[in-house]
Parts: sequence; C-alpha cells; structure tokens
Amino acid sequence: MTEYKVTFLPHNKEVKVADGETLIRAAMAAGVHINASCGGEGACGKCRVLTESGELSGGISKRLRDDDVKKGYRLACQATVTSDVTIRVPVESEVDAGVLNKISTPRQTARITTPNFDELKEQGLFIPPLEKIYLELPPPNPQDHLPDVTRLVSHLTMANNEHRLGVDLAVIRKIPDVLRENDFKVTATLARPVRKVGKTRIVNVEPGDTSGCNLAIAVDIGTTTVFGQLIDLVTGEVLAEHGEFNGQISYGEDVITRIVYAEKPGGLDKLHDQVIATINKIIGRITRRAGVEPGCISSITLSGNTTMTQLFLKVNPRYIRRAPYVPAATLYPPVKASELGLDLEEHVSALVYPAVSSYVGGDIVAGVMGCGMYRDEALTLFMDIGTNAEIVIGNKDWMACAACSAGPAFEGGGIEFGMRAAKGAIEDISIDPVTFEPMLLTIGNKRPKGICGSGLIIMIGEMFEIGLINNLGKFDRDNDNPRVRKSNGVWEYVLAWADQTQIDRDISLNEIDIENFIRAKGAIYSGCMTLLEEVGMGIQDLDRIILAGGFGSYVDLEKAMTIGLLPEIEPDRVTFIGNGSLSGARMSALTNRIRRDVVKLTRNMTSFELSETPSYMDNYIAALFLPHTDMNLFPSVKARFEKRKAAGRLTKPSSGE
Amino acid sequence: MTEYKVTFLPHNKEVKVADGETLIRAAMAAGVHINASCGGEGACGKCRVLTESGELSGGISKRLRDDDVKKGYRLACQATVTSDVTIRVPVESEVDAGVLNKISTPRQTARITTPNFDELKEQGLFIPPLEKIYLELPPPNPQDHLPDVTRLVSHLTMANNEHRLGVDLAVIRKIPDVLRENDFKVTATLARPVRKVGKTRIVNVEPGDTSGCNLAIAVDIGTTTVFGQLIDLVTGEVLAEHGEFNGQISYGEDVITRIVYAEKPGGLDKLHDQVIATINKIIGRITRRAGVEPGCISSITLSGNTTMTQLFLKVNPRYIRRAPYVPAATLYPPVKASELGLDLEEHVSALVYPAVSSYVGGDIVAGVMGCGMYRDEALTLFMDIGTNAEIVIGNKDWMACAACSAGPAFEGGGIEFGMRAAKGAIEDISIDPVTFEPMLLTIGNKRPKGICGSGLIIMIGEMFEIGLINNLGKFDRDNDNPRVRKSNGVWEYVLAWADQTQIDRDISLNEIDIENFIRAKGAIYSGCMTLLEEVGMGIQDLDRIILAGGFGSYVDLEKAMTIGLLPEIEPDRVTFIGNGSLSGARMSALTNRIRRDVVKLTRNMTSFELSETPSYMDNYIAALFLPHTDMNLFPSVKARFEKRKAAGRLTKPSSGE
Repeated sequence: MTEYKVTFLPHNKEVKVADGETLIRAAMAAGVHINASCGGEGACGKCRVLTESGELSGGISKRLRDDDVKKGYRLACQATVTSDVTIRVPVESEVDAGVLNKISTPRQTARITTPNFDELKEQGLFIPPLEKIYLELPPPNPQDHLPDVTRLVSHLTMANNEHRLGVDLAVIRKIPDVLRENDFKVTATLARPVRKVGKTRIVNVEPGDTSGCNLAIAVDIGTTTVFGQLIDLVTGEVLAEHGEFNGQISYGEDVITRIVYAEKPGGLDKLHDQVIATINKIIGRITRRAGVEPGCISSITLSGNTTMTQLFLKVNPRYIRRAPYVPAATLYPPVKASELGLDLEEHVSALVYPAVSSYVGGDIVAGVMGCGMYRDEALTLFMDIGTNAEIVIGNKDWMACAACSAGPAFEGGGIEFGMRAAKGAIEDISIDPVTFEPMLLTIGNKRPKGICGSGLIIMIGEMFEIGLINNLGKFDRDNDNPRVRKSNGVWEYVLAWADQTQIDRDISLNEIDIENFIRAKGAIYSGCMTLLEEVGMGIQDLDRIILAGGFGSYVDLEKAMTIGLLPEIEPDRVTFIGNGSLSGARMSALTNRIRRDVVKLTRNMTSFELSETPSYMDNYIAALFLPHTDMNLFPSVKARFEKRKAAGRLTKPSSGE
Repeated sequence: MTEYKVTFLPHNKEVKVADGETLIRAAMAAGVHINASCGGEGACGKCRVLTESGELSGGISKRLRDDDVKKGYRLACQATVTSDVTIRVPVESEVDAGVLNKISTPRQTARITTPNFDELKEQGLFIPPLEKIYLELPPPNPQDHLPDVTRLVSHLTMANNEHRLGVDLAVIRKIPDVLRENDFKVTATLARPVRKVGKTRIVNVEPGDTSGCNLAIAVDIGTTTVFGQLIDLVTGEVLAEHGEFNGQISYGEDVITRIVYAEKPGGLDKLHDQVIATINKIIGRITRRAGVEPGCISSITLSGNTTMTQLFLKVNPRYIRRAPYVPAATLYPPVKASELGLDLEEHVSALVYPAVSSYVGGDIVAGVMGCGMYRDEALTLFMDIGTNAEIVIGNKDWMACAACSAGPAFEGGGIEFGMRAAKGAIEDISIDPVTFEPMLLTIGNKRPKGICGSGLIIMIGEMFEIGLINNLGKFDRDNDNPRVRKSNGVWEYVLAWADQTQIDRDISLNEIDIENFIRAKGAIYSGCMTLLEEVGMGIQDLDRIILAGGFGSYVDLEKAMTIGLLPEIEPDRVTFIGNGSLSGARMSALTNRIRRDVVKLTRNMTSFELSETPSYMDNYIAALFLPHTDMNLFPSVKARFEKRKAAGRLTKPSSGE
C-alpha cells in the first residue's frame, strides 16, 4: 500500500495516508479542523484549501472561482492525495485547535491480526484440521483383492504412517468409482481429531492429485451483517471476503424481535432458511471471486451470538429472552453442512463456536480466541459494543465475562436522527470551539442523513470537550450561537442545516438524545467496573483493552475515554481487533489447537449476571456523568479540563462533580 | 411348551412332540415310515393309523370308512397330538425299517441360542450400548441459569457419575421444550462408546420417565427373506419377530442379478428403496404386534451378505461381481437410520455388521459372533449353506474363512422339479426300501408342487441308502419298479403321481438333477477340506460343526453326512444355530462387547480365495461321489454299507470306489 505524507499549514501537522485518500479525511486524521457540513459530498464548498506543494487529484468544483483554482485552491472533500503534499488551510476554514490540547493519538491504533501459518507453527498452535494427501495405490489383482477402503487405509498406514483411521459412509459410497477413474491415483481428505485420543476420519476421496486445492470457509453470523472468508488451508491465505446483510433482517432488526418471530409457527424454519440463504450467497460470491470450485471446500467454521447460532442450527431460541435467560446449549457438535442446507459437498462439516451464555455468545468466544488473549499473561479487558456490550476480563489463567444491555443508542436507536452505519450517516465530526461550526464526514461522502453510533461518540465527546455541553450533557443556556437552540422545548445543537442534508430537515442532536446516550455508555462502563470488582480488580490492573466488532473498529478512542464509555488507560495499550468473531472463525478453520482450546476456555470462563450483582446499579448511577462522577478515574480528561478551567473556557460544571 | 410322548407300534419307537404336532411329522421325527404321497394334505388316504391309547385331535376323513373311524383309525397327516398316545402303523403303511440301521439321532439336534442378560453378565459380555436414565433436574432460577444441555450434563456428572458426555444436535434442538414439558423431569438416552476412550453420547431426551421402554430392532437382510426382531433392551427379551420377502426380489432372484440391476441408471436407488421398504414393513409389523410405540426404539442393528449390505447402505456393488471381486469396504460406520429412509426417529443409529470379503459377508460374521465360537477354545467349523456356502474355521485364537459357489441346487436351481422352500415343496421324504413307496411331507401340508433344497438332501440320501441309486448317483438299470423309469432318455424316480400333485404332472427326480446336486455338495465339501488343509488341519481336528442359515436349520444331518455334503463327525458335535445372522444382529443390539469384538474379529480373520488355491480342484473331483472317493472319511456310512453289502442289498458300486 503506497502512503503519502500530507502536511497541513499553518498547524504544521503531518499525517500519512493511503494513496487516493480524500484530503478532508487526511485532515480529520491529523486533527485539523476544516469547516464542512455536507458530509464530504462537495455540496457546501466550505472546505476550500490551498495546495502549497505536491499534487492533488480532483477537488476542482463550480463552488471554486476559476482564479482560485489556478492559484491551487481545491475542495478538501473532493481532492484525493496522490503524492506528498503540503496544504494550507485558509483562515475561513481554519480551526483554533490550540486551546483543545487534544490527545494526539491517531484514530487508527494497532490492530491484532490472525497469525499466519509460520507464526502458528512457531507458537506451536498449528494442528491442521483437514489435510489432503495424494496417494498412488497399487491396483487390485487376483493375489491382492483388498476391499477398496481397506486398500486406501492400508496404504495410508504403511506409506504415510497414519493410524486409527475411520471412514465416512460418503467415502465408501464413492470410493469404488473414484479409485478406478484415474488408475487408483487419488487424493484423500483427512479430518484430524480435536482430542488426541480421537480418530482421523477419511472424509473424502477424489480422483487424481487435488492436494493443492484445500479450502475452508469462515463465517461471522452477525445479527445485521454476515461476513464470510474463503481460506486456503494450504497457505493460510484469505483468498476472498464478502459481507451481506443477514436475510433475517426482514423478520426483525434485533435479536429479540427475531426470537419472537421464531416462536411463531414456521418462524424458526424461515429464519433458519434466511441465514442459510445468506451464507450460500456469500459462498457463491467468494468462490466465484477467487475462481475456485466449491468442491475444493473441506470445511466451514462459523461464529455468532447465541441467538444467531441457535437460528443457524435450527434450535428454537425461545428461552433466551425469558428469565432466567437460558440457552439450549453452549457447546455444539459438528454438523453436516449439507444437512443444514448449505451449498457445500456432503463431506463438509460445519463447526460452530460455543457460547458461554444467552448473552455472551460464540462471536465473543471467537473474538477471545482470535485475539489470543487466552494464551497471554497480560490481563486484558475485551469489549464488543453493540446493543449489548459483551465484556471479557482475564488472561491465560482465568477468564470472566458478562453482558450488559446498553440499549440501541449505539445503533442509532433512541436518538432522533440516529441511524445505522450506512451511506449518509455522520461518522466523524469536529466542531470549531469558538464558532461551533462543524466539520462533518459521512459514510460514502454523501450529504448527511443522520448520525451513526461511532459518530455519536465523537460528537458528544467533541461537544463536551469544547464546553458546548456540561458533564450532565446539558447545553449552556446562555449561548447565543444559532446552532444551539431550543426546539419544541428541548435544547439542541444543529449539525447540518436542512439545505445541506438529504432529508431536507435540520439534523440536530438534542438533550434527550444525549441523555439516552449517557445511559448507554453508563451501562457499559459500569459493566466493566462491576466485572472488575467481582474479580477483585480495578482499572489500574489492566494491561490492555481489546476492542472488537465493527463498531469497535470505528470508535474514536480519545472521545470514548473523554465521555467515559471506555475506562481511561494509555491509548497505546488499546488495540482494535476488528471483526473478532470472523478472525476467531478463521482461526478454528486453520488449526485444531483452537478447536481444542476453545472447549476448555468456555468451560473455564466464569459468567457473571450483572443484573444479579448488587454493585452494578451503584456503578451505573456513578457513570451517568461525562465522563464519570469520579474524575480521578479519568486523569487525562481531568488534567485537560483543569487546564481549560484555568483558561476560563469551561462550561459551569454541574453538581455531579 | 407342552410336549407329549408318541409311541409307534410295532416298531416300539417313541418320540416327544409339541402339543398340536401332526402325527405324520411325529412319525417322520421318530424314523417311522408311513406311506403318504400327497404331502400331508389328506388327499391320498394312505397314511391310515390306529390309535391304541390316548387321544388324537382330528384325522377323521371321508377317505376312512366309518367303522374304521369307530375302531380308532385316523389319517396320520390330519390327526394332531394332544395327549400321550400309542399309535399302531398298519401293515399296509408299515415300513421295513430294520434293514436300514439308521443313525438314530433325531433331526433336531442342540441349538445354540443367544445368551440372555444374566449369561451375558456372567460371561462379562454385557456392556449396554444404549441406556435410558430418568432424571429429575432442578429447574433454573435467577441464581442458577445453566444452559439446558449443561444442566442435563452436570446432573448426569454429579448424580450419575457420568463422564465425557457428548450431545447430538437433535437433542439440543428438542431439549428446551422437553425439559419444560414435564417440570424438568426427563429421560435421557445414552449411547455408550464402543471403544473405552470414546465419548458417551446423549442421543435423546424425552419428557417424564420412559426408562422402562428402551427397544432395539435387529435385522437379517437376506437376499430372499428379511427377518426382523424387536428386542427389549431392559430385559433382553425378543418381543416380536417377523419375516418378509426382500422387496428386491422382483429385480432379480440372486445376488448377481441384483448387482447387474444396480448398475443400471437408477437401479441402485431402486434396490436400496426396496430393502428399506421391506424393513419398514417389518418394523411396522413387529411394533404393532408388540403394542409398542416406534418412538421407543433406540437402535437398529443389521447384518447381511456383502451385496445386501452395500445395497442397504446405497453403495454400488458393481465391483463385487468383477474379478478380483473387490467390495467397497468391509467396515461401515454407524449411519442415521432416518437418513437411510428407515421409519425410525432421528436419533436412531443403524449399525451394520462388517464383512470379510465380497463373498464372506456380515451375515457370516454375525453368525460367528452370535454363536460365540470366536470366544471358545473348541475348534469349530461354521457353515452357512445356500447358493454360496460360507465356511469359517477357527476358535478364540485364530480364524480362517472362505466362500465356495455351490450353484443354485440347494435353492432348487438346476433341478427339474426344484423349488424354493415354500408351500407345497417336498421337505421330507422316507422311501420304503422294498416297495420304493414314498412318505412325503410338504411345507404347509399341501399337495406337492416340487422339491426344496433340504428335501433334496434327504431324498438323495434316502435313495442312496436304500440302494435306489449308486455312489455315482445312477439308478439301477435292472429295476422293474414303476416309480423308476426312463423318461425322454433320462432315468428318474417318480416321487408323486400327477393326480396327487398340485401341478398335474408326475413329480420326479432324474439323474441330471442328481448330477447337478452332487456337483453342489462336492463344491461345499471340497471347500471345507481345502480350507482345513490350508490351515494345516483335518476333519479329525474339529471339535464341532455349527450349521447356520435357514437351510442349515432344516438340513437332515444324517443324510447330509451320508451323501458327503458335510464331513462326518459324531452327530452330537453338530449344532444348529438357525438364523445366525439374525442372532448376531441381536447380540450387537444387546451389548457393546460384541460391537468391539467384531471389529477385532474381522481384522484377524484370514480370508482364502478357494479358486486361487490349487488343491481345491483335486478335492472337488474327489467329492463328486456319494459320499466321497475316500470312504474312510465317512466311517459310519462305510460301516452301514458294508453291513448292507453283506446282506446283499447294495446296488453295484461304480468305479469311483
């Protein structure tokens, strides 16, 4: 990936960005504010910048005067970086950033990725679950009339030192013709036992040498989105990847409505069929994209939350939503993929990640396996934030987990202009602390339609940092900025005026939205605190935080700590794992070590029911402030605010502190 | 079973028969000849006997004069024994039996039956494959919200000391509702591992206490007939039994024609469907008869020859009939019964007996397991005679086997009036050595239609004993008895005149029939001799012979030795196992010990290919005489013949001796 250096003047801030990145995103990454309210679509023309050296591509617009274009002015949202450049932000677009004393960590911190084969081998983790072996068998004759399967097994024993072999019926059914199709030269697919005492099963035979083509599919079954990867079991490479909306969405947006639907006559079958159809679509897409035969696929590994897992396996999730919230099972046996309706060959087994409880599912377990925290000394806090926030604390010696219901705020629920992360959703914002003019970025660079969860965190963090709201989430009533107003009796901040949106209405964030959001972040924070307390620890004991999930990948770490969503620790001790569920599924496709360890892990993981833990409510109430009633838990935030207080810029704190 | 004593005068021969047996069968069992040529239908009126004491039921006929009835005369074929009786055979019906010096062993010798539970336990053989355990689980509450399966598994671990438990997906699917249907009181079905290191699988859960109802089905898949038994796994009892013709019969009478049909497009599917339909019919019949729910059936175990097994499992048997006669496999994994199309619940596994080779199949292995010879010190010759005769020799330390193709003579093939064992088939015969008048018994006591295999053995043995044919199977050309005649250039003996048959033709046995028969018996005898030679042994080393199969059960031991079909050993060292395949299937339904031992057994059994053994042809040629070229192998027969020779009654021996 080619990267270029972008230098912003007069701030003299530098950032490295990938070839083709837009200039406005480079500015956002560098912490440089440029006024922009159309989300990056080029409609407002406010983000005029001057190229001082280097070349930009595009960015010429009718919104720029011809002589300005000649001088080197471009629209930052339309111009892309194609060389090292120096950019001057004109006065009208410039931000008074000095006063903010921002934490200078860039948004993208270190990511953990799945180890490759060499790393797996080095760490002693590589035990291939499926191997293909090419064999040249002696054909039978009157003196050697071993049965076909016995011939294969004997050869594997003698020539390949294989022992304790079992054979599937499907192999018995096809072996007579397969052996004779290519003069007894065949490739056998061997499925290795997870436990050492188990048998190696011969699950497939193919004529000729197909040992080079041994593939697996890994799938993350999300409530909203299903992601699949095609993995080469010979090289460990990901050959293709694709995501689709979970077809169940038309029967309910969240887990609870899906469960309700599954309880209706025929509902379970329908939801099962939908997710199977979604996965089949993904399998079709990624095999076509990689140009491989679906017949080369030897296994499929999957992970999802407990409800998604039960629906995938056609297990009624009815009791998951009824107290005391009991799932049918947490450990699932391997199942024939074709029996579930997947478009895979008869010999392919589907292996699903075990869950811990109704609300700590296989997706979380997969994340824990994928990031490797279960093998590390380091005490890790693992978090996956969505409607529910699942929290895991532990290391290689012990592990505890809990789920807390944050409500739908992070998915846009309970927020007037809230929306899912989709095109037109405001995902990033910077607000001028003096003028309160915003710099908005939307997903897909479209005119704004609403605010997504990650945008909301940044927005509230930003508003709190610049003193637009106080620690209770209330606006300064004395403010005379036109963007801060009372509408229908509720105070709000206008992010985008109607004429710059897709919805022809002012997009704003009001105090009710903020209150709902604070409840959500409070629930998550108090979940972390309560779980830490239950295991006799505090934030100071944490060696690191791992953030998983699509949401986790987009969250602005600084802002998340500023508002008290995440415990404050040094930013370089926070890592993003991205789709942890998918990387866990990939790991279990690659090595039996993971398949073995995960069973042990789920057995040893202590699950806490927060609603049954008395301290949870106290922790929750203490967390209903920005960032928290106890500012000592957030020393950096405290330091910044004290500095600003000294500068006289802080909104009057509320009685919380 | 009530038995009565029947005494025949003037012979003063006694026999014990079951209540309700016909008098003529009692006479046959006692070795008393009564003229009778209508097969026992009451049509010829020749079998007039006088009741001297005791009571008979029935036997009064228009063929008897009224005053004779008053005197106590009855037709032996129509009268049944209902008390101890003394019967006088009148002169006209009497046989000159004295000269024959028959071996006095009754036809029915000791039978080996499957051990019952107590015996299995005493012998350390009882390891139940499937157990049902009733459990009262504590219902979940806010402090105890274990997942359903975990709740079940924990309880089994704590309260029942069960370990290493696996759970099938079907159980996960049903457990939430089953637990809540009867207040968490459930019965779990546990499938025990065959190998000690294996897992116990929970294969079913049912509401309430159903532990008393734990059934299995055992099936013998014969080429002609399929037999099924319903077995109570709690008591070990056989609750019901039923046989049906194998539905595949319409696609070919024997194994070879079935294989040919299976090679046609759709042929394999059709044959598979047919045998499945036959087994389903049997399951329906035996469950209805026993008045049990098919849902109580926990397992099905099956055995059949290699072709029947492959057709049952839908494995193409194409290469079984092509040199070098290679089956697809000999060991088969357990398969879901419902997947094969059997009308059994989803959790029921079908376990099929392993084969040794294309021609020594699972039916033979099942017989060896069922009779227990593999656990005994005694050196045993195990034989199952049909179109092929399968022979096993060995004891607990070693085992060798072979199959020899006898041709279809024993099933009536190549015999002019030959037929399968069915109603109207002559199954037993006695011939007056002076008058050559026959005493015929037919299956179902119908007028004769033809001769079945077991009848043929007796017939040829009888004809040879009384000197009607010589040791080459040729008639005495000087005979002037009307029943011995030349027809269309071939010598024959008339068994029944046209007016006493169902077919309105004289039923006879001719020299071509006898020649075909001698070839068949010669093949079997030489198979035994060759196999014994291959393992460095002789007949004198045999401790016992076990005869299996429907045919084996009906064979007349004395006659079989007289003609040289079986090696001559003391009759009390010969036992009949009946349907050994079925009893083996029953054994593997009852105990895992058998399931474990059988795998070891088939691995250790040496299979000989007789056609590849040079001495086989020499042995075969030597066996093409009655009983054999070497009369020293048949000392009793030799002794009898020398006695008769001295009495001047023997037909001139042919140049064979």
